[in-house]
Amino acid sequence: MTPYESLCSLAREIALLGSTASVLGWDQETFMPPGALNYRAQQLSSLSAKAHALATGRRFASLLEKAEAQTDSLTPTQMANLREWRYERDRAARIPTALVAEESDVTTHAKHAWAEARKRSDYSLFAGHFAKIVQIARRKATLWGFKDEPFDALLLGYERGATTRAIAELFGKLKPKLVSIAKQATERSRSIHAGILRGNYPIAKQQQLNQEIAESIGFDFQSGRIDTTTHPFCTTLGPNDVRLTTRYDQADFTSSLFGVLHEAGHGLYEQGLPNPDFGLPSGTAVSLGIHESQSRLWENHVGRSEVFWEKWLPRAAQLFPNLRKIELADFLQAIHRSEFSFIRVEADEATYDMHILLRFELERSLLNGSLEIDSVPTAWNKAFTELFGKNPPNDANGCLQDIHWSMGGLGYFATYTLGNLNAAQLFQAAQKDKSVTSGIKAANYQPLLQWLRKRVHAKGSTLLPAELITEATGNPLDPAPYLAHLRNRFTR
Amino acid sequence: MTPYESLCSLAREIALLGSTASVLGWDQETFMPPGALNYRAQQLSSLSAKAHALATGRRFASLLEKAEAQTDSLTPTQMANLREWRYERDRAARIPTALVAEESDVTTHAKHAWAEARKRSDYSLFAGHFAKIVQIARRKATLWGFKDEPFDALLLGYERGATTRAIAELFGKLKPKLVSIAKQATERSRSIHAGILRGNYPIAKQQQLNQEIAESIGFDFQSGRIDTTTHPFCTTLGPNDVRLTTRYDQADFTSSLFGVLHEAGHGLYEQGLPNPDFGLPSGTAVSLGIHESQSRLWENHVGRSEVFWEKWLPRAAQLFPNLRKIELADFLQAIHRSEFSFIRVEADEATYDMHILLRFELERSLLNGSLEIDSVPTAWNKAFTELFGKNPPNDANGCLQDIHWSMGGLGYFATYTLGNLNAAQLFQAAQKDKSVTSGIKAANYQPLLQWLRKRVHAKGSTLLPAELITEATGNPLDPAPYLAHLRNRFTR
Repeated sequence: MTPYESLCSLAREIALLGSTASVLGWDQETFMPPGALNYRAQQLSSLSAKAHALATGRRFASLLEKAEAQTDSLTPTQMANLREWRYERDRAARIPTALVAEESDVTTHAKHAWAEARKRSDYSLFAGHFAKIVQIARRKATLWGFKDEPFDALLLGYERGATTRAIAELFGKLKPKLVSIAKQATERSRSIHAGILRGNYPIAKQQQLNQEIAESIGFDFQSGRIDTTTHPFCTTLGPNDVRLTTRYDQADFTSSLFGVLHEAGHGLYEQGLPNPDFGLPSGTAVSLGIHESQSRLWENHVGRSEVFWEKWLPRAAQLFPNLRKIELADFLQAIHRSEFSFIRVEADEATYDMHILLRFELERSLLNGSLEIDSVPTAWNKAFTELFGKNPPNDANGCLQDIHWSMGGLGYFATYTLGNLNAAQLFQAAQKDKSVTSGIKAANYQPLLQWLRKRVHAKGSTLLPAELITEATGNPLDPAPYLAHLRNRFTR
Repeated sequence: MTPYESLCSLAREIALLGSTASVLGWDQETFMPPGALNYRAQQLSSLSAKAHALATGRRFASLLEKAEAQTDSLTPTQMANLREWRYERDRAARIPTALVAEESDVTTHAKHAWAEARKRSDYSLFAGHFAKIVQIARRKATLWGFKDEPFDALLLGYERGATTRAIAELFGKLKPKLVSIAKQATERSRSIHAGILRGNYPIAKQQQLNQEIAESIGFDFQSGRIDTTTHPFCTTLGPNDVRLTTRYDQADFTSSLFGVLHEAGHGLYEQGLPNPDFGLPSGTAVSLGIHESQSRLWENHVGRSEVFWEKWLPRAAQLFPNLRKIELADFLQAIHRSEFSFIRVEADEATYDMHILLRFELERSLLNGSLEIDSVPTAWNKAFTELFGKNPPNDANGCLQDIHWSMGGLGYFATYTLGNLNAAQLFQAAQKDKSVTSGIKAANYQPLLQWLRKRVHAKGSTLLPAELITEATGNPLDPAPYLAHLRNRFTR
């Protein structure tokens, strides 16, 4: 075996451990009895210790060096794999084991403290832990190094090639436009009756409809399934094993359905990655911002469109008699209804990104030291009021609402809005293809899926996110398609 | 750490890998999408290779030697752990790695060939594979060593301390008595209408009843659950995580219910093992014959008794209206109805052991060379006709019906009848305890469970099976209680 081949084999061994951990994680969220929690944590940490030892061990490093010295016969894909391994390896090598252990310890306690703080809506219970988390994040940023500001280094953990400056510029331009769209959308929605879709939707029938729809957009149930959890997610347990979850509201079938469309978007990406490269960068999704583009594309651009419901509303009405009286136009109005929410995860399409912009700015200020930990609630409420015109009633509905910070996930939020921008740009570009356009007109999404398979899914991590978007759409990231989509849906 | 403590820690590490494999195995049988099969096999073999390397590696051997040299301060339980580790280690060490690999290869092919052979009812498709399996079994027996005959060495893999001679003597005595009981049972059953329990039993309501009953006998759903599979089983994924499965017949609720009682019997044993010793012999079930005693005790002695249904038939009738007209006496007659079956897994309590006796004798003859592979179908049919008075119509309903031989499981079957004998002897002995007896009279099985917890479950593998039975019941294994139970139920 060449050093490159040995490296692939070692990477696959690490992926076997990682995907085994994913099986355990999936079971923990779906079916595991509560008493099993402590032992499950031991099983998981044993696996992750083994995977970590292989990924950061001498053998990997030495094979990588040897492979980098023998690149003559390597393909561009193989070169991309070396590039990604080198990047991950160097990033990992800069963080001492003691700091990894310290962060794990701090976040374990912080998660408990956050849950309690949110329950009591008492930020003081979380502030001390949060201070430690921000301090660790700064130390990591210093160890990793950064060009302009510490936030750069954190961002790269979620979005390869992204810079704080570029995102700040982008979000800065977006902000007044998003605020204006959101205002129009929410004002216009006041006259829409919120309750017309409320009814009795038996869960078995919701599952039936969700399965039919997921299948129709191309999700392969031979290599995947849908289960029920409190917090919906998509996880990959192997190259032909993608598990989605959703949650059911007996009074509103759209809750589970849009959840399934969102997670199936993630799932289609995972199912479309090159199977033989499972465990290699070329068989791995490239970034959160690209991943989220796939979920938002299927959820919002496809799943909330008129043509989609022209096809599916009659089928839904077969399953749910109370839909039989509802006209397509009223149904669309109901699912496009917009309302300001204090809570990000309850926000609709027209108001969602404002929640992200707020978090991005606060995180950035925390990292560069211009915002103190103790001032976070005040800063949050001030920013929220500026954006939404309302003051959060308490911190549980304000700065304590998300779990991300308690897990050390500073830098993560920005990728949600990047996902929305990427989704709109990809969806617009795909429609330059005539078969995609005529497919969409007939609610046949196979051509669209094939377009995404070829230009996004099949690429794995061989292109950086910005390269992928430019190659797939012909242009660098551009907010215009997303703004046009929002205006079209919410202001006309 | 002392060598004994280091050994415990290594054993727990091996158990973490083994129990992780159990999570993967459980998922494979219950929920895994079909496309995931190949990669799941890779995940499992990676885990078992790691566990095998630790269990047979130098570190384990050297710690074991050191621990055996420092036994002064060890408790009897700790001494028993050393005894079991030494036994397993020496047994494993005698089989060269090449033979393990050869057996794995042979059985992988044999399982496929067996499935095809059974489907076509064509023994010739399996015979060549079976010959290899028997040859490997003989080589293993020679490597392990044996006192009287090769079958001894195989038996010990399932039932510590058992000898072929003792079992042959026991089964020889049982045979005419079992045949006589089975004849009376089946003859008497001819007048019992087979169909009175047939009806429409919605699966959700069967699940409700099964859960209530499993809970009432003490199965802890905080540390376990019940799912659906084609072949019911019980598996342990961790010290507080015992998963049962059953299958549902919409027309007969007793099918899933007795399946749950059987598997819950296994599950109660697993849940009753000493939790802190998970992964050590003292926290592990001692043998198949003892395990099967727990499943058969709850399924047959408890679950098919009059007092049990005095309590549960009214509850079942609340859930299933068609039971409301059925008298307790008729219900009991129906669940005690006996009929000869060609298929072991469909056999009832009165005829089951004859299937085992037949297999035990054939296996023994194959191992000591007095029966040729090609003569198995003839020998099977001859023995079957002697026992049951009927000739199997074909090999699919004869010598090809069970998967065990294709997996190399020679010696396994005997433990089913040992389980029946152990169950009856334990159930009889438990009733010498007044609280157990008065509990049973009121269909309150907590005292019985406590009795079993103390005398069987809590022992783990610290006692050999024969010692456990003698200590728990005051007598060595004795077929009288089982025969009395069968006569009482089927001939009065």
